[in-house]
Amino acid sequence: MKKGTRGKLVTFEGCEGSGKSTQLRLLGEYLTSRGTDFIMTREPGGSVIAEEIRKIILNGDYTEMCPECEAMLYAAARVQHLKEIVAPALDSGKLVICDRYVDSSFAYQGFARGLGMEFIRSINSFALENYPPDITLFLDISPAAAFERKHGADKNDRLESLGLQFHERVYKGYKSLVGEPRFCPVDCGGTKFETAEKIRNLLIERGILD
Amino acid sequence: MKKGTRGKLVTFEGCEGSGKSTQLRLLGEYLTSRGTDFIMTREPGGSVIAEEIRKIILNGDYTEMCPECEAMLYAAARVQHLKEIVAPALDSGKLVICDRYVDSSFAYQGFARGLGMEFIRSINSFALENYPPDITLFLDISPAAAFERKHGADKNDRLESLGLQFHERVYKGYKSLVGEPRFCPVDCGGTKFETAEKIRNLLIERGILD
Repeated sequence: MKKGTRGKLVTFEGCEGSGKSTQLRLLGEYLTSRGTDFIMTREPGGSVIAEEIRKIILNGDYTEMCPECEAMLYAAARVQHLKEIVAPALDSGKLVICDRYVDSSFAYQGFARGLGMEFIRSINSFALENYPPDITLFLDISPAAAFERKHGADKNDRLESLGLQFHERVYKGYKSLVGEPRFCPVDCGGTKFETAEKIRNLLIERGILD
Repeated sequence: MKKGTRGKLVTFEGCEGSGKSTQLRLLGEYLTSRGTDFIMTREPGGSVIAEEIRKIILNGDYTEMCPECEAMLYAAARVQHLKEIVAPALDSGKLVICDRYVDSSFAYQGFARGLGMEFIRSINSFALENYPPDITLFLDISPAAAFERKHGADKNDRLESLGLQFHERVYKGYKSLVGEPRFCPVDCGGTKFETAEKIRNLLIERGILD
């Protein structure tokens, strides 16, 4: 990364159990091994206030939360995390890897919850206008296969505990974003190491890594 | 209130120390004495989730909270409180008295924080389109006089602890709303009982009370 230029924002997206955590870890290890200056962060959360908002969003007891409230809590956590953590890192030329970003809101709240993409766009205008991702890696695996992979893991948070039908809608929501140049589906049919290699190759192709 | 018709939504607005709490109490006592079926609630808060959001908004340690995050937390708490508490009460024909509502966001975040009225309108579209107030009672007292009244009271929450200059901007924000037919400034120059009487008269004039 040249000094004085803005860093790149790489976001990871996918359904529950898509292997995001594993791929983030593998990419982190790779970047560390090659001495890249980067930060890895996550949404919702990543700063003190945003983590407090996260606790409300994911609280399994809050089954009465309405979709609009959920969408706005995500957007609130996002803008806070963006201003406190992501923007300063990008502005200092760092590579930022973020686990979930605006596309999660498009897929989960806009599409699966039925709020519509325009509403999501309007409440996330700060992020979209000022800090659009340079590349979004969408771990493309069907929710049925993803659920299978997640077998045995914790399923107790408010969003994970929703049924397969909900996650099928989330997947369709993500699929509706395919076509935007920055939005890159990554086929996850192979081993985790094969997927990690695809991700590295995509980052090289797009000029994020050399 | 006739059975089967939607109840009326009365909102109270004003700067810190404007005497809102006192006037809400006096109105509540009056309504109880005449046997009116009403609920009195407040923003941000008024439901379990909204009260949790309120704790984040008002936490005095969170000085790093950005205006967009603040505005979106208010909007999130508002829509949740609206759907859980306000809307069912209105739909069952009850009179709803709410301590703060969308105009607080216009005055505090839109005007005083500089986010602009259009942004506030867009994130509060659900409330504005579906549940606009039937009357808004704006306790019209200058922040300097209001601060004087508040003397000795708790000033430790994140918003109350902002300086007089900020509250002057909030006041200007409220003043910019004068002209909307539902928005009624109430002169608070007299005693609290005189103000209470003005409020009752306004509610009668507007057909909220008979």
